[in-house]
Amino acid sequence: MKYSKLFGKTSKNVASDADSVNAKLLTQAAFIQKQISGVYNFLPLGLRVLTKIQNIIREEMNKIGGQEVLMPAMTQEENWITTGRNTMDVLFHLKGQGDTNLVLNPTHEEVITPLVQKYVFSYRDLPVALYQIQNKYRNEARAKSGLLRGREFSMKDLYSFHVDEADLNRYYDIVKQAYFKIYERIGIGGKTVLTFSSGGNFSQFSHEFQTLNEGGEDTIYLCSKCRVAVNKEIINTQKTCPECGNDKLEAVKATEVGNIFKLRTKFSDAFKFFYSDSQGKEKIVEMGCYGMGPSRVMGTVVELCHDDAGIIWPKNIAPYQVHLVGLDGLGEDLYQELLSKNIDVLFDDRDIGAGAKFADADLIGIPVRLVASKRSQEKGGIEFKLRSEKESEIIEAKDLVSKITSFYN
Amino acid sequence: MKYSKLFGKTSKNVASDADSVNAKLLTQAAFIQKQISGVYNFLPLGLRVLTKIQNIIREEMNKIGGQEVLMPAMTQEENWITTGRNTMDVLFHLKGQGDTNLVLNPTHEEVITPLVQKYVFSYRDLPVALYQIQNKYRNEARAKSGLLRGREFSMKDLYSFHVDEADLNRYYDIVKQAYFKIYERIGIGGKTVLTFSSGGNFSQFSHEFQTLNEGGEDTIYLCSKCRVAVNKEIINTQKTCPECGNDKLEAVKATEVGNIFKLRTKFSDAFKFFYSDSQGKEKIVEMGCYGMGPSRVMGTVVELCHDDAGIIWPKNIAPYQVHLVGLDGLGEDLYQELLSKNIDVLFDDRDIGAGAKFADADLIGIPVRLVASKRSQEKGGIEFKLRSEKESEIIEAKDLVSKITSFYN
Repeated sequence: MKYSKLFGKTSKNVASDADSVNAKLLTQAAFIQKQISGVYNFLPLGLRVLTKIQNIIREEMNKIGGQEVLMPAMTQEENWITTGRNTMDVLFHLKGQGDTNLVLNPTHEEVITPLVQKYVFSYRDLPVALYQIQNKYRNEARAKSGLLRGREFSMKDLYSFHVDEADLNRYYDIVKQAYFKIYERIGIGGKTVLTFSSGGNFSQFSHEFQTLNEGGEDTIYLCSKCRVAVNKEIINTQKTCPECGNDKLEAVKATEVGNIFKLRTKFSDAFKFFYSDSQGKEKIVEMGCYGMGPSRVMGTVVELCHDDAGIIWPKNIAPYQVHLVGLDGLGEDLYQELLSKNIDVLFDDRDIGAGAKFADADLIGIPVRLVASKRSQEKGGIEFKLRSEKESEIIEAKDLVSKITSFYN
Repeated sequence: MKYSKLFGKTSKNVASDADSVNAKLLTQAAFIQKQISGVYNFLPLGLRVLTKIQNIIREEMNKIGGQEVLMPAMTQEENWITTGRNTMDVLFHLKGQGDTNLVLNPTHEEVITPLVQKYVFSYRDLPVALYQIQNKYRNEARAKSGLLRGREFSMKDLYSFHVDEADLNRYYDIVKQAYFKIYERIGIGGKTVLTFSSGGNFSQFSHEFQTLNEGGEDTIYLCSKCRVAVNKEIINTQKTCPECGNDKLEAVKATEVGNIFKLRTKFSDAFKFFYSDSQGKEKIVEMGCYGMGPSRVMGTVVELCHDDAGIIWPKNIAPYQVHLVGLDGLGEDLYQELLSKNIDVLFDDRDIGAGAKFADADLIGIPVRLVASKRSQEKGGIEFKLRSEKESEIIEAKDLVSKITSFYN
């Protein structure tokens, strides 16, 4: 893509209401544009990142037997009355034709439980795990922190259904491992820790995945031996590491990027969701739910991966693989060559000064920057620089593609 | 995928409120499940088809320079007041925190126009074409006909912005050709005709794409020479073929699967969206909009492509390439082999009778059906049958993969 043609250009001005690093940098670099508080437009660069995150999540969900479905955002309020959650304060209410009461789902237990109930009758139909990647709606009193707390936001929600608690526990551990794999692939694995939180009335614990970063809105209590943590909500009752008993937990700042929960029979009770076991006896279904917000993850990555000059995208979710800066009228041939080698390139072909182009490249944050200029030609090739490094090097044209592909493999 | 594990099984019972062929067959075959009137869940089979349709559309939009963005469903009512469309009867209204007035967008001119205005100032920034694939919300008085008229439904909407009418006209024709290519790839090209409709106050005509089918809700007037039509709305003022002047137009039934519209300056006037031309003079931006509903297209395909036994999917949008019926305990080896050759297979591995399996294969409608049974083995191979044909043939195991891939190429 030529930057001159790309919709959405960088801006020098900080959005006056940007209350967080991710809102500020993503808006300045033209990845997102605020519509109203907590509601964002994704511009081409931003949608590319969001889609890459969603696809990594999708692949890992498929690998653990998750089947993708798509449920509506809009649902009859009735289902929420059945579970008693219709009074939840973040629920958006609206009226349909004939004065029917509708809501926009902030989560989908009230939709998926009766849906699965239509197709699952016997132990032979279990277990089953279904997920979707859909927008969620929450009428937050204070939407804030850019993509971190939205009113309309992207969510992957997986739900699993089991014959008994043992099978739920088995699958819950599989999902936990899949979540770590996702964070690893996205590039925040090393900073993301399993955090024990309240299990509600049914389970001892639920779990959050918290990404350590100084600007995080949560405080968690980290065991440096096990790399697990306890969240603020339960630290008064759980004062030691749940894994090793260590009582020296360190308070650190973090941002939540996922949570998983054994629902047990909370929703199957409400909807009377039973199955017949192998003896033909009626039994209640056990459920788990597993959330991860792709847009929230995107915001968290920016909170973690930036410097004073801009964003530093991890390689698997960068909007393009290469940011090619063309100077002195050069670059077009190289751009075409890289495209022909299936390398995703953003080519800054604008007729402006080198300084402005470098500043934009730093702000946008693509991992590899190339410069094609008279100077680089004189030195025998193309300037190659990683966004995360200070130093650049000159690479001969013939070695450039292998240099790029080896970085990305 | 093994059918025994697939979420959502066929049902013999016709949904009592299915008012159309697509609602009936898609529900019976477990592609979709109604949530409320005009609002559907997409089960795994249904989401696979919807995603394939969306991806074909996406590829063709990218080819004509469309840049993908994602706008929110939820927006401030204010933007709709600016254009005077806040009284539109299908608009869903809701309240945000602080008693703010919000709407769910039934279309996105009110969002995209001020969004593009934030980045486009000069003739150098034009033309630009942006599209999204998002859910739309319309509070229809009578949602009906399954996926054809929904309250929440998938929509691809492309918007283009130009320096003048000539450039708008140029791009409008490019989009028209891209639409035909999409219908061709989806498998309804031969039945889909360009239909002239009202251009509103600004243009002589807008255009619909109508798919001819006996169950269609629209009547259009077709010129058999040119394969173009005139819609009901303008037939009294446009009594002849707009292409050749033929005055013998035939009334036929059809379903609308897309529409394109020269908006001209309707929205740029409302939002005061000007640009500077090469002389620095302020000029108004010209706009076009181009809609196509993937879920509506999916419903239309079923209306057109079915028989008494079920759906007959066109090959590019079928949920799987092969429906493998295993009988007499056979099929597992073949299933694994086909998977290893990257062929998408739905394998009916259930322990039920052959008749029920064949009936399900016909209902689900995957283009290629294979039967692995003692009988087919005795005859020297695997039974191969197209869903669209009556006759089957026996193919030797060694020739099977090339037989399948040649059908799909």
